[in-house]
Amino acid sequence: MNEEDSFEEKREKLNELVLEKGNLEMKRFFNLDTQVYREGALTRKTKELLGLVASIVLRCDDCIEYHMRRCHEEGVSDEEMNETLSIALVVGGSITIPHIRELFEKWQKLKEV
Amino acid sequence: MNEEDSFEEKREKLNELVLEKGNLEMKRFFNLDTQVYREGALTRKTKELLGLVASIVLRCDDCIEYHMRRCHEEGVSDEEMNETLSIALVVGGSITIPHIRELFEKWQKLKEV
Amino acid sequence: MNEEDSFEEKREKLNELVLEKGNLEMKRFFNLDTQVYREGALTRKTKELLGLVASIVLRCDDCIEYHMRRCHEEGVSDEEMNETLSIALVVGGSITIPHIRELFEKWQKLKEV
Amino acid sequence: MNEEDSFEEKREKLNELVLEKGNLEMKRFFNLDTQVYREGALTRKTKELLGLVASIVLRCDDCIEYHMRRCHEEGVSDEEMNETLSIALVVGGSITIPHIRELFEKWQKLKEV
Amino acid sequence: MNEEDSFEEKREKLNELVLEKGNLEMKRFFNLDTQVYREGALTRKTKELLGLVASIVLRCDDCIEYHMRRCHEEGVSDEEMNETLSIALVVGGSITIPHIRELFEKWQKLKEV
Amino acid sequence: MNEEDSFEEKREKLNELVLEKGNLEMKRFFNLDTQVYREGALTRKTKELLGLVASIVLRCDDCIEYHMRRCHEEGVSDEEMNETLSIALVVGGSITIPHIRELFEKWQKLKEV
Repeated sequence: MNEEDSFEEKREKLNELVLEKGNLEMKRFFNLDTQVYREGALTRKTKELLGLVASIVLRCDDCIEYHMRRCHEEGVSDEEMNETLSIALVVGGSITIPHIRELFEKWQKLKEV
Repeated sequence: MNEEDSFEEKREKLNELVLEKGNLEMKRFFNLDTQVYREGALTRKTKELLGLVASIVLRCDDCIEYHMRRCHEEGVSDEEMNETLSIALVVGGSITIPHIRELFEKWQKLKEV
Repeated sequence: MNEEDSFEEKREKLNELVLEKGNLEMKRFFNLDTQVYREGALTRKTKELLGLVASIVLRCDDCIEYHMRRCHEEGVSDEEMNETLSIALVVGGSITIPHIRELFEKWQKLKEV
Repeated sequence: MNEEDSFEEKREKLNELVLEKGNLEMKRFFNLDTQVYREGALTRKTKELLGLVASIVLRCDDCIEYHMRRCHEEGVSDEEMNETLSIALVVGGSITIPHIRELFEKWQKLKEV
Repeated sequence: MNEEDSFEEKREKLNELVLEKGNLEMKRFFNLDTQVYREGALTRKTKELLGLVASIVLRCDDCIEYHMRRCHEEGVSDEEMNETLSIALVVGGSITIPHIRELFEKWQKLKEV
Repeated sequence: MNEEDSFEEKREKLNELVLEKGNLEMKRFFNLDTQVYREGALTRKTKELLGLVASIVLRCDDCIEYHMRRCHEEGVSDEEMNETLSIALVVGGSITIPHIRELFEKWQKLKEV
C-alpha cells in the first residue's frame, strides 16, 4: 500500500468511527466541514488554497496534508503553491517552517505519482 | 475625518515610526510583507482572501481590518466574502465569531461609502 | 442603559446582522453553537464551565464574558468559579492573567446587580 | 507491556527527570498542576472534563491523552465524553478534528481493557 | 495622572482583587510568576527580554506592555530592543506587527518621560 | 549515524529542497531567519535563548530542538537553561510540559556526547 492510500485510509477509518460513535452535533459539524469547500462564488480550487493557508498558520499537519492533496486534485500549479506558502510563511512566521518543509517534500512526491 | 481615513492614517503613522526607528531586519520583513501580496500566478484578489482567512483564524483584528479593506478594493463580492468567512469559521471555530461579527459590521459600512 | 444590557444588545444586534447577511453555512454553525450547550448527559452549568475554560485558554474576551454571564445565570458559586479559573490559569499560563483579571472585576459587578 | 503502561511509564520517567534536574520553580509549577485537579467545590470528574476541553482546543496530544485516561478513571460515560468533545469541536473548529479522531480511537481501546 | 501611573494602577488594583477573592492556587501561581523573573544565573534584564519575546509571539498586549516597562527599568537600549523585536517578528510572523507597532509608540513615549 | 547528525541532516536536506524549489520570497524569509540570530547588541547566546523561549510557548518541537542545540553550542549552562524553561513554563502554562519534558531528555543526551 503506498503512502497516499495509507493517509486516506486512516483518515477514512477514523472519520467512520466518529460518525458511528459520535453524537448528532459532531455529525453536523463534519457535514458543515464538507459543505464550505463546495464550488460556489469561489472555485473549489480557491477554497482549498484558503483551507491550506488556514491549516498552515494554525500548524495542523493532518489538515495541511489533506488540503495539499485536494489542491493537487484541483490542479494547483507549483507557482500557485509557492505563492500560497509565501503568504502563510510571512503571516505565520518561522514557526511554520517545519510544516512547510514537510509539505514541500510531500508535494514533490505527490507530483511524481 | 471618517473612520477609514483614521484607520489608514494610524497604520501609516506607526509603520513610518517602525521604519524610522527599526533595524534593517524589520525593514526587510515589512518589505516582504508587501511583496507576497503582489499579482503573480495568483491574483491580488485571491491573495487578499488568503491573507484574510489567515488573519481570522489567528484572530488578529488589525490584520482582519486591513485585508478586508484590500478585499473591498479588489472587488470581492458579498457572496465571495461569505464563503471565505464560512471557511474561516469552520476551521477556526466559534472563537472566531466575535471577529467575524465585527468584520460584518465594518464590511457593511465600507460598502455604503 | 447598564453595562450588561449594552453587552447583550451589541451581541444581539451583530448576531442578527450575521444571520441576515450571512450564508446557510454560517447559520448552521451559529445553530450548532447553541445546541452544544443544551442540557444533556452533562448539565447546562457544567457545559458553561467547559465553554468558559476553553474561552480563557484561547483568550477570547468576548467569549469569556458571554460564558461568565451564562455561568452566573446557572448559579455557579464563587468557589466553583475560582476552581475553574485555577485550571485555566495553570493550563494556559500567565498570558491568561490579563483576561482572568478582567473576568474577576466583571464577576464581582455581576453579583452586585 | 501494553500501550497504557507505556504511556504512563514514559510520562512518569520524564516527570522524574524534570523533578530531579529542574529548579524549584518548575517543581512548584508541577505541584500546582496536580493541586488544581483535586476534589473541591467541583468534583474531580468535572475538573478532568475541564482539563480535557482546554487540552483539545489548545491541541496538545499528550495532555489530551492524559486527561482522557483520567476521565475514564473518574467514570465519564460515552455520552458525557461526546458532549464534551462537541463543545471542544465547536469552540476550537475543524483543526481539532485530527486530535478528536485520535481520542476516539484511544477511548474505544481504553474501554475494551 | 499620566499614562504610566494609570497602567500600573489598574494592574495593581486588579491584582489585589484576584489575591483577595482568588483561591490558594491562584496566589501560588501569581507568586511563581514573580519568582521566575528574579536575578539568577541569567540577569533580570535577560529574563525580561525573554518575557517580552514570549508575550509578543503569544500576542498578549497587557503582558507586552508590562515587560516593555520592566525592560526600560532594566536599562535595555534601543538597539537591544530592536534585535529582540526582530526575533519576535520573524518567529511570530506578520500577525505580531500590530503589537510591535503599538510597542514602538509606547517605547518612544517611555523614553521621553 | 547518531541522532544529532540525523536531525541536522534531515533539516539540511529539506531546507535545500525549499531553497531549490521555493520562490524568491521564501528565500528572503529564510535569509532573514538567519540574520536575526547574528551577534549584535545582544550576544548570540541571548538570542538563542530568546528563540528557544518563543519556540516553547508556541510549542514547535522542531524549532525547540534546533534552538536547544544552538544553546548548547553557545555554552548555555544547566542553570541558565532551567531559568529559561521556568519562564516558558509559567508564561505558556502546563500545555508546554510535554515539550519541556522532551527537551529535558534531549538536553541530557546532548551533554553526554
